[in-house]
Order: sequence, then structure tokens, then C-alpha cells
Amino acid sequence: MRMAELSRESGVPVATVKYYLREGLLHPGERTSPNQARYDDSHVRRLRLVRALLDVGGLSISAVKDVLAAVDSSQSSLHDVLGVTQHGLPLAPTDAADDQARTWARTRVAALLDERDWRCHPDSALVESLVGLLATLHTLRHADLASVLDRYADAAQQIAEADLHYIAGLPDTESIVEGAVVGTVIGDTLLATLRRMAHADVSARLFDSGQPSTGQDPGERETQGGGEDEHHHGHRE
Amino acid sequence: MRMAELSRESGVPVATVKYYLREGLLHPGERTSPNQARYDDSHVRRLRLVRALLDVGGLSISAVKDVLAAVDSSQSSLHDVLGVTQHGLPLAPTDAADDQARTWARTRVAALLDERDWRCHPDSALVESLVGLLATLHTLRHADLASVLDRYADAAQQIAEADLHYIAGLPDTESIVEGAVVGTVIGDTLLATLRRMAHADVSARLFDSGQPSTGQDPGERETQGGGEDEHHHGHRE
Repeated sequence: MRMAELSRESGVPVATVKYYLREGLLHPGERTSPNQARYDDSHVRRLRLVRALLDVGGLSISAVKDVLAAVDSSQSSLHDVLGVTQHGLPLAPTDAADDQARTWARTRVAALLDERDWRCHPDSALVESLVGLLATLHTLRHADLASVLDRYADAAQQIAEADLHYIAGLPDTESIVEGAVVGTVIGDTLLATLRRMAHADVSARLFDSGQPSTGQDPGERETQGGGEDEHHHGHRE
Repeated sequence: MRMAELSRESGVPVATVKYYLREGLLHPGERTSPNQARYDDSHVRRLRLVRALLDVGGLSISAVKDVLAAVDSSQSSLHDVLGVTQHGLPLAPTDAADDQARTWARTRVAALLDERDWRCHPDSALVESLVGLLATLHTLRHADLASVLDRYADAAQQIAEADLHYIAGLPDTESIVEGAVVGTVIGDTLLATLRRMAHADVSARLFDSGQPSTGQDPGERETQGGGEDEHHHGHRE
């Protein structure tokens, strides 16, 4: 196909396709005259992957190049390729918690990794991110929230199994990497949204007794709850 | 206690405390002279809540006022208060997917709510957000990822139960609301981080066969995997 058709087929504007060609994010077409080249399905697939990495994943151009190099290398296992991809995805910043909080958090994370036998290097950026988050909870005086960490980790593991089995069914490496980016990024928000919907539901069951809240002990309130006032159907009506 | 001590105790600078007083986010102290007032533990608790809402939750000043009004109203159940709080938390923007994708997504979400009997109004902002996310997956040609939606919803429900039982154990309404904000916001990132750690682990088990990835069918690769090359310990070493 010609450039115009490649643009139509992929949904990427011609000027952007040319930019990707110049940047080396897209391999050149087969030249048919000094000013024309022919493109094929491999270009459509590659454009779809590049768009997912840039637009959905928020990767930098240089991180995209690293992913593409791994996809194209005959030395990379699919695990390597997914590793490079994940490395390029931005993580939440871990802000400065105090040393005492970080030490506590580091011990807690080490115990978690040990129990689960997760293959995760203790110095990896993901582990650092988790340490930072727990340290933040500690600083905010909610260290006890770490008591539910195992439930979170169980849930994360179930979801990760489902995610990876989905992408393992995709037809080629480029689709798998693209699916990993889309699934990771959209999946985070999907999960956050479902969690809030579930919060609304659980809160209705636990706390919507029709009793006023102020100055009451919640344990006391739970035993009072008569469920006589069930007119609330979610928080954002 | 005096203003200086209130500031020290709460960790909030004096100028900021005065700003909150002017904005009505903090109730006045008991006036002891024309230029001095006395503050108590109720001020420390309220300051902690205001900081959590503004800094962790990212709520606007006016959304914080709504939450505080609900906390202080004798007519609000705790469920109402948490609803107002959740309403103030920013949601991910749901960008424009095409009509066909949105129609498909709406049907899918309606089925999910129906199956789970979640108390969530079909027009709520959370439902709209979920519809937008699924429509985006459809537009990105990953509608099949919705097949794992039930696994996500199961996980979200488990986590929400754990979250709400944690905050139900907190001593007063202000702590509960503060815990809900901290737990919701930090919890989202905690879960995203754990999910990526679990991805790395599941990927190592499924895909780290030491075989190159390019041009191979993943099903084929799985049967080839001899596990002879187990030197990878997470993606971000």
C-alpha cells in the first residue's frame, strides 16, 4: 500500500507517519520510485504498537525505541520484551517520607516478597515504589492499612494471572506488547473505578443505617443499623 | 493550647492554620483575649482531616467544605459522609470514544451491575467512568480485555471489603473520612504497583523460556519452554 492508504488504515496522519520514519520508530517501506514507497501489514502493526506506547503508555520516544529494539531482537524472550516495556511506563513518584518510616516499610515489603516468592529484585524500581507508598501511609499515621496489604497482593496476583493469559492469546509479539501497555494503563484505572463502585456498595451495607454519623462510635452504629432506610443507590447520583 | 502549639502538634504552619480559619475549614478557638484564642484536640483532628482531603485527596476547597458540612451535620449517616467524600475525589477523564463503542460498553456495564447487585445508580459518574474506559478498550481493539472484567470486579470487591473494615475500626467520624481518603488514593497506587510486581512474576513463569520472542506464536513458545534459563528476577533490576 501507499503512504496515504497506510495512514487511512492505521488512523495515523501522514505527517506523523513521516515523523516516525525519520525517528526510526517505523521501518522504511520498499522503495518503488525516488519519491514513493510501498508499505505492508507489518507497518500497520508497528504503527498500532507505537501509538499505544506513546499515547496510552505515555512512554518517551527513547523508551519506545528501547521497546522496539527488544521486540526486533532475536535474543529477547517475550519476558525480556515485557520487562523493557514495563520499565518505560511511568510510575507514581515516591515522595520523601522520613527514614524511620522507610525502614519500617522496607522490612514490611521484604516480608511480603519473601512470603509470596515473587521474582522481584529487592532493588527494583517497583519495590522502591512500594516502599515509598507504605512509608507515606506510616507518615500519615495509617501504617495499620498495611495490615490489608496481603489482601491487596492476593487481588493483584489474581488480576495479573488474568491479564497475562489474555495477552498470551494475542497473535504476535507486537500485539502482545501493545496489549500489555493498554492492559496495564487502562487496567489501573478500570480497577480503581471498580474499587470505588465496590466501596459505595460496601459502605451502603455497613454504614447506611439511617442513623446520623456525628459523635458516634462506628462499632456501636453497626449494631444499631436497622436497614430501615435503604434509599441510597450509590454516591454520585 | 495556643496557636503555636496547635501548629506544632498538627504539623500545619501557623499561616496555613489562619488561612483555614478564614476559609471556614477550621472552627474558631475559644477566645481568651482580643488577640488570643485557645484550641483543643478537636482542632488537631480537624486539621489532619483537612490536610488529607486537600493534599492526599486533591479535593478543591469547595469540595472540602462539602465534606466538612456532611461530617458536622447530625442528619448525615456515615454512608452519606463517605459518599460526599468520594464525590469530591477526582476521577480519570473519560475521553471521547465513538458511539458504537459507548453503546457496547453501556450494555456490558449494565450486565455487570445486574449480576453483582451493586448499589450503584446507572447514571452515576462512576458508572460513566467505567463505560468510558470500556469504550476506550473497544476503540483500541482490545474489547476482549472486558472478558477479564469479572475477575477485576471480584478483586475490587475483596479489596473494598478489607478497606471498609479497616476504616470502620477507626475511632471517630473524622478519622474514618480521613482514612477513606488516604486509603482510596494511596490504595489505588499501591494496588497498581503490586499488580505490576505480579505481572513481572507471572510473565517470568509464562514467557521466560530463554527462547527468542520474535515471530513465534506464544502458544508454541509455552510448550517449548524448558525453564532452563531462570536468571531473570524482575524487570527493573
